[in-house]
Amino acid sequence: MRIVRVRHRGKILWGALKDRRVRLLDAPPWRGIRISRRSVPASQVKILLPVRPSKIVCAGLNYRDHAAELGMPVPKEPVIFLKPSTAVIGPEEGIVYPPGVTRVDYEAELAVVIGRRARNIREIDAARYILGYTCANDVTARHLQRRDGQWTRSKSFDTFCPLGPWVETSFSGSPARIVCRVNGRVCQDSSTRQFIFSVDSLVSFVSRVMTLLPGDVVMTGTPGGIGPLERGDRVEVEIEHIGTLRNYVRN
Amino acid sequence: MRIVRVRHRGKILWGALKDRRVRLLDAPPWRGIRISRRSVPASQVKILLPVRPSKIVCAGLNYRDHAAELGMPVPKEPVIFLKPSTAVIGPEEGIVYPPGVTRVDYEAELAVVIGRRARNIREIDAARYILGYTCANDVTARHLQRRDGQWTRSKSFDTFCPLGPWVETSFSGSPARIVCRVNGRVCQDSSTRQFIFSVDSLVSFVSRVMTLLPGDVVMTGTPGGIGPLERGDRVEVEIEHIGTLRNYVRN
Repeated sequence: MRIVRVRHRGKILWGALKDRRVRLLDAPPWRGIRISRRSVPASQVKILLPVRPSKIVCAGLNYRDHAAELGMPVPKEPVIFLKPSTAVIGPEEGIVYPPGVTRVDYEAELAVVIGRRARNIREIDAARYILGYTCANDVTARHLQRRDGQWTRSKSFDTFCPLGPWVETSFSGSPARIVCRVNGRVCQDSSTRQFIFSVDSLVSFVSRVMTLLPGDVVMTGTPGGIGPLERGDRVEVEIEHIGTLRNYVRN
Repeated sequence: MRIVRVRHRGKILWGALKDRRVRLLDAPPWRGIRISRRSVPASQVKILLPVRPSKIVCAGLNYRDHAAELGMPVPKEPVIFLKPSTAVIGPEEGIVYPPGVTRVDYEAELAVVIGRRARNIREIDAARYILGYTCANDVTARHLQRRDGQWTRSKSFDTFCPLGPWVETSFSGSPARIVCRVNGRVCQDSSTRQFIFSVDSLVSFVSRVMTLLPGDVVMTGTPGGIGPLERGDRVEVEIEHIGTLRNYVRN
């Protein structure tokens, strides 16, 4: 099921998108998805950011092909970092190239959306805490990442965390193709089969550090093929079984 | 003025603490502090976490004495990192020593509490966006900080961000003594005179990366003298003109 947050006649609503209609939910999806009898045509809504996370926890190096590309050993434990909630934007929104920044890269990522408060959970139980999955772009000011050593500044600019277009609840985290396209040209093309750490092990790992709240997002790393964006570019993250997140780099 | 968040007869209230009474505010302090005529005795309230930040942005190395202690050059730009909102605890609350962690350090810090949405602000204007100041402890699992390279995991455990006891709105950010005591013994003793980057320059710097929201916290780095905590320890961060934040490391 595709859970969407939409604007319809000035109101923000939750719904399930199917057959070009949005079937409205009675309440946000955190305490179980209850579909009402009301629906609106998808053509009459604007699809918004699918969740408003209190935090976004990201895994560093998590694709074998990306580790090989960088000539780095496969890590024994995930390395995590945070993006601030002020960085998120929804589908079709603009990525702002910050003044003074000389290189901004795309990074296509599978994003896990947490459905229930998760603290100290076991890997085997992780799936019960996951609402679903969406596409993400871990936009990064690459030269600042290198200069700072710490990755935070380079990944924290406003608009540097596009998410969407919806939360797919049926996807089980099974192997899926992940593609990034810039102006239609394929730049990243890999599979979550390349994961070093599975979704369940990442969610468990993070939950042993910090409590995850409903709507929080865990990002699972990017595959090989990272590269720069230019002003005016159209960037798309497509994940099999989920959908396509499209954004534009603003002039 | 000392702005406190307190629990009184099961309710959470904002107030101004003076002469052992809490004068209640009409509303949270973000749109101007309006003191009502009602007050309660301070002896009848529990002082809580003074703010609930959406994000906590921290500066790395920012004291000349600490840079000298580490034999590191004075940085040209701040290095920033984030602590998650789930890490915060209030005064007198317990710091939990996580399982498997072998060293947990205190780091006394002056914390800036943002009062108004701040984006891309100039250093000269920063003071207008600051509600006030409180004490903070940037608790750090030191061995994980070294192992990961990225500082996030080591600083993000639940309870690793004590804040409090109140927001002092009269303090102007002028030089102040900052002391950390463990079981009464002085471990850090310095002055914000040692700052490499001033409060105003840090707030401006961060606001040029990410939008700061009311209640967000900017932490200004720790002075020399960092060291480990043991289970059962009492740790106090005292900042001149503000007050003392006391916490206990839980057994």
